[in-house]
Amino acid sequence: MPKVHNFSAGPCILPNEVFQKSAESILNFNNSGLSLIEISHRSKDFVEVMEEARKLVKEILEVPETHDVLFLQGGASLGFLMSAYNLMGTHKTGGYLVTGAWAKKAAKEASFMGNSLIVDSSEDKNFNYIPKDYEIGDNLDYFHVTSNNTIFGTQIKNFYKGNIPLACDMSSDIFSRKIDVKNFDLIYAGAQKNMGPAGTTLYIFNKDILGKSSVPIPTMLDLKTHSDKDSMFNTPPVFAVYASMLTLKWLQNNGGLDSIEKQNEKKADLIYNQIDNSSLFKGTANLEDRSTMNVTFTLENDDLNETFNTMLSDAKINGLKGHRSVGGFRASMYNAMPIESVQLLVDVMKELETKKG
Amino acid sequence: MPKVHNFSAGPCILPNEVFQKSAESILNFNNSGLSLIEISHRSKDFVEVMEEARKLVKEILEVPETHDVLFLQGGASLGFLMSAYNLMGTHKTGGYLVTGAWAKKAAKEASFMGNSLIVDSSEDKNFNYIPKDYEIGDNLDYFHVTSNNTIFGTQIKNFYKGNIPLACDMSSDIFSRKIDVKNFDLIYAGAQKNMGPAGTTLYIFNKDILGKSSVPIPTMLDLKTHSDKDSMFNTPPVFAVYASMLTLKWLQNNGGLDSIEKQNEKKADLIYNQIDNSSLFKGTANLEDRSTMNVTFTLENDDLNETFNTMLSDAKINGLKGHRSVGGFRASMYNAMPIESVQLLVDVMKELETKKG
Repeated sequence: MPKVHNFSAGPCILPNEVFQKSAESILNFNNSGLSLIEISHRSKDFVEVMEEARKLVKEILEVPETHDVLFLQGGASLGFLMSAYNLMGTHKTGGYLVTGAWAKKAAKEASFMGNSLIVDSSEDKNFNYIPKDYEIGDNLDYFHVTSNNTIFGTQIKNFYKGNIPLACDMSSDIFSRKIDVKNFDLIYAGAQKNMGPAGTTLYIFNKDILGKSSVPIPTMLDLKTHSDKDSMFNTPPVFAVYASMLTLKWLQNNGGLDSIEKQNEKKADLIYNQIDNSSLFKGTANLEDRSTMNVTFTLENDDLNETFNTMLSDAKINGLKGHRSVGGFRASMYNAMPIESVQLLVDVMKELETKKG
Repeated sequence: MPKVHNFSAGPCILPNEVFQKSAESILNFNNSGLSLIEISHRSKDFVEVMEEARKLVKEILEVPETHDVLFLQGGASLGFLMSAYNLMGTHKTGGYLVTGAWAKKAAKEASFMGNSLIVDSSEDKNFNYIPKDYEIGDNLDYFHVTSNNTIFGTQIKNFYKGNIPLACDMSSDIFSRKIDVKNFDLIYAGAQKNMGPAGTTLYIFNKDILGKSSVPIPTMLDLKTHSDKDSMFNTPPVFAVYASMLTLKWLQNNGGLDSIEKQNEKKADLIYNQIDNSSLFKGTANLEDRSTMNVTFTLENDDLNETFNTMLSDAKINGLKGHRSVGGFRASMYNAMPIESVQLLVDVMKELETKKG
């Protein structure tokens, strides 16, 4: 059991062996007598790290030969812009499914080089559901979705399948479940949930999109720039890529997506069952759209907040404060979160129920 | 004395205490029981790191109140684009002093939202000098220079002073010498030389430029976005910022720029004197433009390369291979390089001289 139970929404818990090995690498990398962070990124040792990280992504997600994998910088926030630049076609229009704060920000960036069309939005109900009955015209160059909404605790269970190229910000649930990569023209994800520390951003895309944009793309925002140089066009964020590689290796060694998906469902079931059987707690997300990564809930009686917070603190449960736009509580349970920590949280919720329910 | 003498051009040598403290932080940050890379970037502990890093930059460089300091992502390569976006004015033209490969890449990015004008270039002599007798018209929105050219071993000794706003890519010599920040409208620098590990990019700019661009700037490329949020608009590259903060603290504790500038000159003198008094070695850069950071030189007799390389390897001198566009050797001697390592290199050069000179 960890000393502190870290339910932070991101940056967030990572496997303990990632902390151990990445700390070691800073003192003495590969027994070279040099630190990981002082060697040239063009050295054989680091090029191997980058190649291993890309290979692990391909193996774990079963990325088809049609697609390339890159580790870049800028977070999903730069991904909003890059996805629009790289996918903008002859219609000069991107379509967006607005399911949360980040999706809304993504939609804004398309307007810098084209038109941004909101296909559907759940803002009417403070993003507590995933819209499903939308229609997509044939005047779109791409359709952009956000797979998991960290703030609002919702998650897309069935992705769009159709003729319009699909782009997806998968920052907060990539590597948490199986996905069919070939259905996506572009996936991007900030590392700092299931993949590694903050500081690198994963891009997976169909190589067919390269060089096809209808707008001129500045060098660093063009995926072709980075694909042509095997993700080494400029100095990569060395430490973040290395720690991501270690996290991906941990995932692969622990059964990959088959295994982690089952564990994540088990953890989510534990806490959602407690919420649904409680007289004190209430989930905020629509039942069928509930996220396995971020469980958002409130105490129906605000007066109990202080008591609950004290109990959480006594149990060394950390990072449970909900985002200000939803309030209440949020339990983020990424891959590295042990089920024992979730059980402890559920036990504390039960204890409050016994005391005050 | 370090086990390995790391003359790598970047990422490169950093102070030993930075390796020690940053490795510790990954195992147990601030005695929190949590790793630096698993805590929320909005936590009090990390916000303090970011604020301390910004404060140290301001103190060490004596940044005036008119200027702001940010730690962003993307490297200088994204800085090429951001500087053009943020400084483009009514003339829709940026002027560039092309003193090397990076300067040339910087000039290219202005063409995505305006005109890029080459004020002068030293490409005629493979960038072995800094042009000085150029004239700057009054039809420029800004004048962009590269303070130090890592590949070619040249460095600007006297910066332009005039009415045109000055932008500078200072990636490879920031914090190596005193500069007068108020003369620059924008300075940017990838961290991975004198400031820290790869993965974060420093921006220092006159706050007057914010919101004045004549072109629409995508959200993440607009310095105002980040300035308004105290460098925390999106998740920062936590580890890279922390290790940079430690490096800056080391610099401050060791006498700041006054002291480091003298040390850097001493180190540079040592090796340039050896080159100039040698019958075997020849410097490639114009005498008055020689860089104190990157010393580029060749062996006049190519047949000696193998012998010299073996001697370097025996002395555990690492990273001395010159860039392919210059050939020969390059000794990069950033702030953290002890003079003892430079002396050792000079001793090896002397030994070759005795044997073969």
